[in-house]
Amino acid sequence: MEPSDLAGMALIAVAGPEDALAFVSSGASSSAALEQEMNAVLNDSGVPRWPGLAAALLRWRPRLTDLAPERDLRVVERLGGQLLVPEDPEWPVALSELELNEPIALWVRGRALVIPEQKRCIALVGSRDSTSYGANVAMEMAATLVQRGFTIVSGGAYGIDAQAHRGAIGAATGRQFLPTLAIMAGGVDRFYPTGNEDLLRAVAENGAIVAEVPPGANPTRYRFLQRNRLIAALCEVTVVVEARWRSGALSTAHHADGLSRTVAAVPGSVYSANSAGCHRLLREGSAVCVTDAADVAELAGAPGTQLTPEQLGAPAVHDGLGVEDLMLLDALPLRSVTSVDKLTIVAGIGATAVLAGLGRLELLGLAERANSGWKRRC
Amino acid sequence: MEPSDLAGMALIAVAGPEDALAFVSSGASSSAALEQEMNAVLNDSGVPRWPGLAAALLRWRPRLTDLAPERDLRVVERLGGQLLVPEDPEWPVALSELELNEPIALWVRGRALVIPEQKRCIALVGSRDSTSYGANVAMEMAATLVQRGFTIVSGGAYGIDAQAHRGAIGAATGRQFLPTLAIMAGGVDRFYPTGNEDLLRAVAENGAIVAEVPPGANPTRYRFLQRNRLIAALCEVTVVVEARWRSGALSTAHHADGLSRTVAAVPGSVYSANSAGCHRLLREGSAVCVTDAADVAELAGAPGTQLTPEQLGAPAVHDGLGVEDLMLLDALPLRSVTSVDKLTIVAGIGATAVLAGLGRLELLGLAERANSGWKRRC
Repeated sequence: MEPSDLAGMALIAVAGPEDALAFVSSGASSSAALEQEMNAVLNDSGVPRWPGLAAALLRWRPRLTDLAPERDLRVVERLGGQLLVPEDPEWPVALSELELNEPIALWVRGRALVIPEQKRCIALVGSRDSTSYGANVAMEMAATLVQRGFTIVSGGAYGIDAQAHRGAIGAATGRQFLPTLAIMAGGVDRFYPTGNEDLLRAVAENGAIVAEVPPGANPTRYRFLQRNRLIAALCEVTVVVEARWRSGALSTAHHADGLSRTVAAVPGSVYSANSAGCHRLLREGSAVCVTDAADVAELAGAPGTQLTPEQLGAPAVHDGLGVEDLMLLDALPLRSVTSVDKLTIVAGIGATAVLAGLGRLELLGLAERANSGWKRRC
Repeated sequence: MEPSDLAGMALIAVAGPEDALAFVSSGASSSAALEQEMNAVLNDSGVPRWPGLAAALLRWRPRLTDLAPERDLRVVERLGGQLLVPEDPEWPVALSELELNEPIALWVRGRALVIPEQKRCIALVGSRDSTSYGANVAMEMAATLVQRGFTIVSGGAYGIDAQAHRGAIGAATGRQFLPTLAIMAGGVDRFYPTGNEDLLRAVAENGAIVAEVPPGANPTRYRFLQRNRLIAALCEVTVVVEARWRSGALSTAHHADGLSRTVAAVPGSVYSANSAGCHRLLREGSAVCVTDAADVAELAGAPGTQLTPEQLGAPAVHDGLGVEDLMLLDALPLRSVTSVDKLTIVAGIGATAVLAGLGRLELLGLAERANSGWKRRC
């Protein structure tokens, strides 16, 4: 069955996966008792109406003849991969939040056949037609996040996805954990799109490639949309690096939002149509603004994020001065010399405050005595 | 007294402006009864402790000799301007939200001596060292907002302020309302900074120049900081167009936030230090992301904001298709012809659904009959 086939998920919930397959394969017609139990499961999940078990059987039975699970297993094993099912201890617990939309299996091939825990996974997603700006941000962000111990999850597509995988692989040298995961809409036996074949081979060698559909499955549009929910569910934070006003990357963001996962967006020029989708998320308040890997790591709860020197900035000479001292400093002439009486008038503060303030400013190297008066020290 | 001199504001609140001045001018020493009443006013406003009336008198009295209100009035009248006080019907009600920090007077010169109501005023502020990106955004945003009937309020400084005033004046032709206001830190008799002299003259000719300090007053650092609260208070929305991580423009944003006015920020490249302050506001959630004048107008409650053609985008062929039709469309071959049975297997939906779906896709021009089967129509 296709991903997120709710009737199928309800049947598995009621009968278990083995009996569910046996029932569909048996050719038996719809059962009122079974349908009632499936109804209960679907109602619990908020599905109000469904076409019924008979309609679902019509959908599943034509595919039985092409079903060859042993062949699929052999294919993935030959690629050094394996099948994960929810009963496996390695099954990612993060997926359970998808509830009835949780996948029934994951096919994995790669350097290691495990999926890192949610809090170490960051999704970097975006448009296929990225700009050089978006490509740079994606690559730098991915590299820095991998250096900080995060796994970059993306969809293996052209543009932002590809740059995110590249940045992650480039920063992976000598690290034990998987730097990147590509979650595919088709089977893990093919590298799709073909223009990314070399990149996806590198992802498989350094990280892992994951799909919920079996080897040989085509990456259809429906599966692309469903795949986005897996990216969102596996990650602590989903970052949209660059997206047009209408973009598939926004679908991943909406899935993450629906799962109450943190969504972030990278700002860009208001003149760039490729950032319009990011700005839309920011404007609607459904994404947090992130400008670098440190921002993202902080959202993922990483401790010890430091401000960069630019952010700390050079302190201004008047930082930390009280209001009266600030007024006094403004009143002190740079070139000529002035008296305490004159300062009292110009600064608009009492003579005692002027005298005390001059003492503090002198101590800070901001004022100096000259002849019988005071001036600014430069 | 200086702007926001809380003791002075309390004295005026207790005695009224004329008696307050008479008391300070009289040379009388501090009065326990007066101090007690001022204490009550300050406590009501959340000021916990103040140095007392005697200290305040020490601050005010030295300035009495230089006080020449009639001269100040003559100066502003000669410039075609006037003095506004809270008792005037033209006094902007928006300022009352400053409470004890409300200015005691406004000096205005310009084409008209009124200040437009808050809901028509938009502040565009930003750094003096703007980039060409920020300058373009400020100018375009100001021009479009003036075309939509808004008044652009800014501080008359170099950079973003200047571009905002320029954009507003350029779009002002033939409009009855004031396109722009420059709120100054010094007196309205001088055009400061001198490099903006021509621009500020144009602001006075087309719009108005406003200050709370009298003619002849220097624009000190303290007065610049205080001036920002006026910009924030007069405007429905304060837009930070471009600002570094530490920037005076952020002070205006914080004032607006403190007054529960809407704060907006324009995003930019994450590599531009001049947008770091904007991204900081967005990240902290204290500003809304705005990318054009339509976004800003919407925040100011302007009706009828239209999506631009870019935002509407070209609809994709598969927009509005149900999930099953989407699967069916994916399963239809582009070049060869396929059968309903095969479609049932590939699409994974029942034969009845395949037939109904093919009918809908044919109607939409997405599928066509060929020989005894079906294919995608391109």
